[in-house]
Amino acid sequence: MSSERIIYLPLGGAGEIGMNAYVYGYGAPDKERLILVDLGVTFPDMDGTPGVDLILPDITWLRERRDRLEAIFITHAHEDHVGAIGHFWEQLGAPIHARAFTANIARRKMEEHAHSPETVRTASAWPAQVEAGPFKVGFLPISHSIPESSALVIDTPEGRVIHSGDFKLDKTPLVGEPWDPELWAEVSKDGVKALICDSTNVFSPAPGRSEASIGPEIEALVSEAKGMVVATTFASNVARVKTLAEAGDRAGRSVCLLGRAMRRMIEASVETGVLKGFPKVIGPEDATQIPRENVMLIVTGSQGERRAASAQLARGKYNGITLKEGDLFLFSSKTIPGNEKGVIRIMNQFSEMGVDVVDDAGGRYHVSGHANRPDLETLQDVVKPQVVVPMHGEHRHLREHVKLAQSRGRTGVLAVNGMMIDLSGNSPTVAEYVETGRTYVDGTVQIGALDGVVRDRIRMALNGHVIVTVILDEDDEPLGEPWCDLMGLPEMGRSHAPLIEVLEEDLSQFLGRAGDKTLADDDKLEEGLKRVARQTAQAEIGKKPEVTVVVSRLS
Amino acid sequence: MSSERIIYLPLGGAGEIGMNAYVYGYGAPDKERLILVDLGVTFPDMDGTPGVDLILPDITWLRERRDRLEAIFITHAHEDHVGAIGHFWEQLGAPIHARAFTANIARRKMEEHAHSPETVRTASAWPAQVEAGPFKVGFLPISHSIPESSALVIDTPEGRVIHSGDFKLDKTPLVGEPWDPELWAEVSKDGVKALICDSTNVFSPAPGRSEASIGPEIEALVSEAKGMVVATTFASNVARVKTLAEAGDRAGRSVCLLGRAMRRMIEASVETGVLKGFPKVIGPEDATQIPRENVMLIVTGSQGERRAASAQLARGKYNGITLKEGDLFLFSSKTIPGNEKGVIRIMNQFSEMGVDVVDDAGGRYHVSGHANRPDLETLQDVVKPQVVVPMHGEHRHLREHVKLAQSRGRTGVLAVNGMMIDLSGNSPTVAEYVETGRTYVDGTVQIGALDGVVRDRIRMALNGHVIVTVILDEDDEPLGEPWCDLMGLPEMGRSHAPLIEVLEEDLSQFLGRAGDKTLADDDKLEEGLKRVARQTAQAEIGKKPEVTVVVSRLS
Repeated sequence: MSSERIIYLPLGGAGEIGMNAYVYGYGAPDKERLILVDLGVTFPDMDGTPGVDLILPDITWLRERRDRLEAIFITHAHEDHVGAIGHFWEQLGAPIHARAFTANIARRKMEEHAHSPETVRTASAWPAQVEAGPFKVGFLPISHSIPESSALVIDTPEGRVIHSGDFKLDKTPLVGEPWDPELWAEVSKDGVKALICDSTNVFSPAPGRSEASIGPEIEALVSEAKGMVVATTFASNVARVKTLAEAGDRAGRSVCLLGRAMRRMIEASVETGVLKGFPKVIGPEDATQIPRENVMLIVTGSQGERRAASAQLARGKYNGITLKEGDLFLFSSKTIPGNEKGVIRIMNQFSEMGVDVVDDAGGRYHVSGHANRPDLETLQDVVKPQVVVPMHGEHRHLREHVKLAQSRGRTGVLAVNGMMIDLSGNSPTVAEYVETGRTYVDGTVQIGALDGVVRDRIRMALNGHVIVTVILDEDDEPLGEPWCDLMGLPEMGRSHAPLIEVLEEDLSQFLGRAGDKTLADDDKLEEGLKRVARQTAQAEIGKKPEVTVVVSRLS
Repeated sequence: MSSERIIYLPLGGAGEIGMNAYVYGYGAPDKERLILVDLGVTFPDMDGTPGVDLILPDITWLRERRDRLEAIFITHAHEDHVGAIGHFWEQLGAPIHARAFTANIARRKMEEHAHSPETVRTASAWPAQVEAGPFKVGFLPISHSIPESSALVIDTPEGRVIHSGDFKLDKTPLVGEPWDPELWAEVSKDGVKALICDSTNVFSPAPGRSEASIGPEIEALVSEAKGMVVATTFASNVARVKTLAEAGDRAGRSVCLLGRAMRRMIEASVETGVLKGFPKVIGPEDATQIPRENVMLIVTGSQGERRAASAQLARGKYNGITLKEGDLFLFSSKTIPGNEKGVIRIMNQFSEMGVDVVDDAGGRYHVSGHANRPDLETLQDVVKPQVVVPMHGEHRHLREHVKLAQSRGRTGVLAVNGMMIDLSGNSPTVAEYVETGRTYVDGTVQIGALDGVVRDRIRMALNGHVIVTVILDEDDEPLGEPWCDLMGLPEMGRSHAPLIEVLEEDLSQFLGRAGDKTLADDDKLEEGLKRVARQTAQAEIGKKPEVTVVVSRLS
């Protein structure tokens, strides 16, 4: 057995959909030279991460080995693959490689964080290869929903590994290169040690449909509409924005893009020449000047995000445009689990305005950008890897994908974040378990998911917050009564007296009875006051609030 | 025109799915004698109602007119129809009428709130009628997913109104009476002024399927399973619990019910004789004693509720039972929008344990308890009402249901919570707009949704909380420095110094510069300190926290 090994270590994206970050290494154990594939974000919610702005992977393991990091490769420009590079680049410091469109987006992100955009290097597609230490990495075109999506062909002295990136098998994807089975067979013909593969749609039993299939459906819908038509999709789904714009154009409408992210993405696509023949767009002011039946808006906010264009139109006005009775609003998108309530809120707001809402209607106006189960089988058949390692999925997706590989006689490896897999030799093994987790961007600060900050916020949200203030004089005697401030708690409790008065009364009695030892000891005093406040609240209002005790000693 | 009128006033359930509460009245304007149909709850979430235990309608309007309230009628025993009677009965004080099974559940709820169960009177099914002031009200059987679900035939001196309750058109519903079109035609033959009708599934285009259709599918699934089988559904979906238990029984397994709500619901069904031939069940201890391939658990928690049996099994153990590799978990349920993340969390936890998870699989293992679009058309054709008033739906459902009625040549009225509709004469009109809203059960206290309590909790969760304490002496001079306590905020900010120190430094400087007028004025002082704390936090960590200022004056 060689003393060198190939390792694969997901730091994000394996056991969740989002914040992709996959490490590959080659070399002697613990001395491997490393590359990182993708560095993405995921999005917070009120449920588990209130107040957080963005969620990034925990890259501590990699940061501590930055001297071994040769390069970062970005497969495509979706936020869950490229969104964290600005936040983390300083901690990693390696060159970033991506194809032209992805690099354009990546450079914008670097500039937002005041990093040099020159760190991002534009790579050509396969058969070009980028050398990075012991690796040679090629960008192998594959269809997805954004231009220039690529799998990575990762060559090591011990053989070839293919990292699929996000993909679907679409021969007419509208943007990006079509699925080319001959090219993939050619690349795979001398043997592929491992296929690290997108698992998102492993539970979807039918073959995936082409982006080209929905254009005519959307055109028919738009043609029949009597008022203004508004369509929303992910801003970064460049293929869909194009499908929508062309359908609107063919239906004789002027197209107007609303939402900063949407305009920026199309701008980058045009700048880099990957989006040709996009219909001429008009600005929002012009859109208000022409008859509404001649206008089609394409807007951000398909997931119900409160600040995006869709939500603002649903609340009333956006960029001077107001929807009204007889207009049509199309969700050309799938609602990501967890976003349903926000999306439904918008639907009902439009309903109140008399706007007709159409959603994906079981696939008529939306197709997924990911490979379904039969497509995963097809890819395996073309690549014929020794091993399939599912990624880009929750645990249930990865597990099902392993089962799928096994059912076809292949070795499948279930590797979640933090599991370092040794891909050398003939059967992969778990080399090590590495601690992983999440990093929160909170305002302008990065905090660890386990720092307790968010836990305290959730506690205040569930239980309310009582602040107890006590002043003691030089002799540790209470000066006046203790008093309370309440936040997020009902005013009146069981005694039909204000909760604050009942609390202050009970706290005062406690202070009156407290011995010298308690009064002289901050911890004891705080503990006692906290206990009384919680007990009283429990009796009065049936819940135990968070309590902060502020003891002031005059001295 | 008569000086009497019939009114319909939804206080809950029209513009949302949940907390149903519909008022009907008959008499001279503002002197109508009233009845209330249903009094249900809806459920809180972290997004909009953190810490809240239960959401009830705001019944202020009705409470202020309780002297005119003749009776309360409950159509069926689901929480969104009966759940609030214990909480509100004291404020309303009218007799409650329901059929035997519903009354059994209602009495349990009354007892939980220490009200006399005798207030709940058992009604017989149509053609029996209950007299309530000018009304005669009959319970007209209709199929749903719980025993004895009924529409209400509401007779007034000016004619007949039918309130559908929740329903589906199922000729083999397993529990409850089958849909009986002849009976409904007979009841409707002399003319129905208005059909107030369930709208939940108006967007479902195919005719609804019978509960009886899924038993064989479930049986096949259970028969093929190698390990323990666990199925979850709503505890109150008695029909489904029966379907599951019988399928398990036929597949040769002993059935064990887990979860308090599940056992209680089946107990009430058996007590009142509405559930016959339910398979013999075993206790959890016995379930651990027999081979796991002979056991089928039916458990609570189909919506991912953290404390229910499903979630506890997913976390490890419940009632001594642990799932393991090779077991099967079936969601015989639909996930209610907003609950997806909780359900998916459980699916992934089971996946980690090696348990196979099956969900409704596009209807194979679940059918809805509500009427689909063609079924709504059928009911309209049988009842032939002058007017259709959609209820039990969000705005978009009500609007679509109105359109559906209109497309069939009927008058449809879109009435949301608070819209009082005058149903007298030939065309309904809006008589009045009444203020409605939500009441939160928070611990043991009822609070109004607009009281600001929950708003403050959400703010603390999003922004964190800073407490600033300042002590002033008898001459309004600061005694020592101001200090801070933080909760839910990062420790370090931009200056790479502890946030608390930077805050205290800036607040101290402010105090040092503050003039006598500011120092003597609590409001000014508080305002100034708050402003400084928020500015400093914004500069340090990029967010503005909630700030509570506690000023103590020695005097």
